[in-house]
Amino acid sequence: MREHRAGPTADLRRTGIHPNFWYPVAVSGSVPKNKTFAAVFAGERIALYRGASGTVFALEDRCAHRQVPLSMGVVEGETLRCCYHAWAYRGNGRISQIPYLPKGVDRPPRGVRSYPVRERYGLVFVFPGDPEKADTTPLPELPEYDSVKHKTMVFSRTVHCHYSFMHENLLDMNHQFLHRGVLGKIQPKLLGYETGPEFVEARYLFVHAGGKKDRGAGLLSGEGFGGGNSPDVITVRTEYPYQTLQAVPENSELPAFSLWAAYVPKDAEQRTHHAYGLLMIAKPPIPGALNLAWPLIRRFTERVFAEDRMAVEAEQRAWDEQGEDWNHEVFPLILDVRDVLRTNGVPIRPESALCGAAAFCDGAPRAGTPSDTASHQPG
Amino acid sequence: MREHRAGPTADLRRTGIHPNFWYPVAVSGSVPKNKTFAAVFAGERIALYRGASGTVFALEDRCAHRQVPLSMGVVEGETLRCCYHAWAYRGNGRISQIPYLPKGVDRPPRGVRSYPVRERYGLVFVFPGDPEKADTTPLPELPEYDSVKHKTMVFSRTVHCHYSFMHENLLDMNHQFLHRGVLGKIQPKLLGYETGPEFVEARYLFVHAGGKKDRGAGLLSGEGFGGGNSPDVITVRTEYPYQTLQAVPENSELPAFSLWAAYVPKDAEQRTHHAYGLLMIAKPPIPGALNLAWPLIRRFTERVFAEDRMAVEAEQRAWDEQGEDWNHEVFPLILDVRDVLRTNGVPIRPESALCGAAAFCDGAPRAGTPSDTASHQPG
Amino acid sequence: MREHRAGPTADLRRTGIHPNFWYPVAVSGSVPKNKTFAAVFAGERIALYRGASGTVFALEDRCAHRQVPLSMGVVEGETLRCCYHAWAYRGNGRISQIPYLPKGVDRPPRGVRSYPVRERYGLVFVFPGDPEKADTTPLPELPEYDSVKHKTMVFSRTVHCHYSFMHENLLDMNHQFLHRGVLGKIQPKLLGYETGPEFVEARYLFVHAGGKKDRGAGLLSGEGFGGGNSPDVITVRTEYPYQTLQAVPENSELPAFSLWAAYVPKDAEQRTHHAYGLLMIAKPPIPGALNLAWPLIRRFTERVFAEDRMAVEAEQRAWDEQGEDWNHEVFPLILDVRDVLRTNGVPIRPESALCGAAAFCDGAPRAGTPSDTASHQPG
Repeated sequence: MREHRAGPTADLRRTGIHPNFWYPVAVSGSVPKNKTFAAVFAGERIALYRGASGTVFALEDRCAHRQVPLSMGVVEGETLRCCYHAWAYRGNGRISQIPYLPKGVDRPPRGVRSYPVRERYGLVFVFPGDPEKADTTPLPELPEYDSVKHKTMVFSRTVHCHYSFMHENLLDMNHQFLHRGVLGKIQPKLLGYETGPEFVEARYLFVHAGGKKDRGAGLLSGEGFGGGNSPDVITVRTEYPYQTLQAVPENSELPAFSLWAAYVPKDAEQRTHHAYGLLMIAKPPIPGALNLAWPLIRRFTERVFAEDRMAVEAEQRAWDEQGEDWNHEVFPLILDVRDVLRTNGVPIRPESALCGAAAFCDGAPRAGTPSDTASHQPG
Repeated sequence: MREHRAGPTADLRRTGIHPNFWYPVAVSGSVPKNKTFAAVFAGERIALYRGASGTVFALEDRCAHRQVPLSMGVVEGETLRCCYHAWAYRGNGRISQIPYLPKGVDRPPRGVRSYPVRERYGLVFVFPGDPEKADTTPLPELPEYDSVKHKTMVFSRTVHCHYSFMHENLLDMNHQFLHRGVLGKIQPKLLGYETGPEFVEARYLFVHAGGKKDRGAGLLSGEGFGGGNSPDVITVRTEYPYQTLQAVPENSELPAFSLWAAYVPKDAEQRTHHAYGLLMIAKPPIPGALNLAWPLIRRFTERVFAEDRMAVEAEQRAWDEQGEDWNHEVFPLILDVRDVLRTNGVPIRPESALCGAAAFCDGAPRAGTPSDTASHQPG
Repeated sequence: MREHRAGPTADLRRTGIHPNFWYPVAVSGSVPKNKTFAAVFAGERIALYRGASGTVFALEDRCAHRQVPLSMGVVEGETLRCCYHAWAYRGNGRISQIPYLPKGVDRPPRGVRSYPVRERYGLVFVFPGDPEKADTTPLPELPEYDSVKHKTMVFSRTVHCHYSFMHENLLDMNHQFLHRGVLGKIQPKLLGYETGPEFVEARYLFVHAGGKKDRGAGLLSGEGFGGGNSPDVITVRTEYPYQTLQAVPENSELPAFSLWAAYVPKDAEQRTHHAYGLLMIAKPPIPGALNLAWPLIRRFTERVFAEDRMAVEAEQRAWDEQGEDWNHEVFPLILDVRDVLRTNGVPIRPESALCGAAAFCDGAPRAGTPSDTASHQPG
């Protein structure tokens, strides 16, 4: 199903994320009507723009003429005009106008590459791989996002490390020592885990063993709303290429919150990514209580995230210096998620972004992305 | 006449500017009497200094002793003394004193390279090529600079792109879309163009087709002084290695203004240059009117230049990422100017600046630049 | 005795400092009790920490688990715990605890490299070379540091150049021209010099020949305390790998001050170092006078040091651009000190820091550094 997998013994940090999935590359609010946004996926620059109708389009971010980024351009109706010599493009990448084209110029460029686009969950997703597989590849399903019983907090941050460090960070809950200042002393106990060809899922029991705990942490897990200081069952799951976390208080059947996350590589070498997170929090019985708690929960989660970022970016710096993976992993499920990420990924070829794009130099955008399939799905 | 030309199929952005011309490397005001200035030409560091007599000299910017830049040194009369161990140099590059030279040291270094210098039009020009050709190579002729009927505005800016992007920018007036915010809607019409082995000249008719126009733009073209909103004939000419632009209102025979520009590479790879521009503006009949308009004209021209810079630097960034020239040019005269720049240039050898200089390691500065030919021509 | 010497014709700026010496890597105050400090020696990152007992330990600055710097960790008694998954290390580099280690994991890592440590003269010294040679290699002897007749000013600055430029700077006193603004006009006269396989020592007579002199300079040489404007005899000595300077007023037998300096490479290519200096100043007869003069002496010495830094960093930049050593040295004793630095040094292998460390990947820290020899010597 996925053809170009990296071998099992390859250095995980040289494994590229598989492009045949839907990846968020912007939050919807970053692409207002009639505006552009300079997005990127693994070294491929992508010009997003939202036309007058509200539809978002995604084009290779360079004019076919002189390579100036189209994201510097001007939206006109459903087309995008380059800022420099005013060449205009349709949402499918075809050139619709060259204002001053002299007669007798044979074979002017036909356009640039376009990407399938979906807008959902307040995010703009593109499909950077084989466009023929876009329609049959589902977006992630997040029923809680639409539920009136939940409210969603959005995270969007650039993190300077390979995406794999993020999966390992969240799956290995023994790293709670890192958050001792925010969470107090937590003793995570691994209840069990499961591994499949495309997933690893681990369940932990979190027992608070003393120490000061950030108030936002309590509010998030429902304690502040009357849940008490009971232990939580935390389920972390990498299901390629996404990751989720669910927290269920031990005295409950329903999750207090669940997190969906995607780690989208930015540079061609994939040593930096943009982390998009949707934290869906169950509303407590008291109306409006969650709104009051919102700023505290935001502060708490940002603190935790900042600590994780400090650790994973230190890991990447070490890898950069050592030039290869020196890790001595002792936790079996982490060895499993490494295999999942390795076998579902693709080799990183730093030049591939450009080589792939070069195929469009002659002006023939890759087939299969007519503008009607690249359209907006109301979120 | 010029020996080492790049082939016609070479990547234009890897073509070095030919050194056998006079290039400005500083505005005169940057080199006050008894002071130094650190200039550069295509990776060659050049120490300028103005002696007590007012003459400007140009030396290779390193002491022959320990390679510390001579531009950090101290001017003494017509000599330049290194700041570190006080070795002194004449304007022709020869060492005139080593204060503490022990007896019995055989063959101390004789000096460093010097460059022919001319000062004219408020600029300091050096001749970075074969010094024997300096005397027979004319400086550009700019009669309007000296005319009492004109006043000159000086531009001096570092731009992070290959000089060729500048020539193409100005010659292809279809880029007026870039300046829509400053100039309103302009419809440039190509009236004709001519190409020779060392030049391309294009004539355009500029018709203002609506939109708000910066007041400085009107003042510059003479409208504000009673010229009305008539169309202008704009003539742009690349005459290797310089570029000029003349604007003649259709109801006039005399240019409202003319621009002379030189794009002087800074780094050895020539991906950055310093643009020097002299904008010579015809004084309107009302005495003092031009002085009043001066700040508005300055603001307008700086805005236009900032937009051009944004575009050409985006082109260079694209080239850096793509590693070669992907441009699909459709405008014939731009194809012509590319040929002119390619065939009159030289291959870029990043190491050439150093290799050339290395020839002086033994202390024998290149012949032919006695201090009397490297002298100042009163401007 | 020192096995891997660079050949006599090697480029001095590619010569690594020999690791079989004691090198300061921090001032003591940077490592308070129960705290860590991220030090470095020639590309090897070193985590210093001071345990509850006051002893300073030095470990390779990476956790054996996931390579996160141990200097980001937490001191617990005499051990250091990694901030991420809480692995704990002893001062000899052995892992003392992995809090969650699952059963059945065979051969978890045993630890990381440790370095012999001595604390003396307000500095933390490590022995980065063969640890078996640490005990038989003496620390520098600085009797004046402990003398009640002296007071010591500490210098600690990163300088972006190869350490050899520092030795040459201080030994060639003809560079006083560089300090003309601070010291006035000095005419240094070389009285004589001696060279041995591991040292060069030069004696100069400094005569003040006019010009304004910084007040701190006078105070430092004892003039301000009644010493008058008499000439000084300055003795500069490189004794591998350290350097010293003594200033003896001509009418005295005792040094007015003496300086001890070490230039400790930071990066693997050794193009940057950290300069540690101890300036031991003889107290004048008037009690408290030195304390009053202290800020002026500090300002003066910092000004001199800033000028030297400007020069040696310009030398390094020139070397970086030229790619090799173009210097034309004419001062014989400088040629001698180059030979001393070359023949006592080791070839720079940028990857050696990592290769050496890689030997510890299997968890076997290099033998010979039990924690009791890596201990603190009360200063």
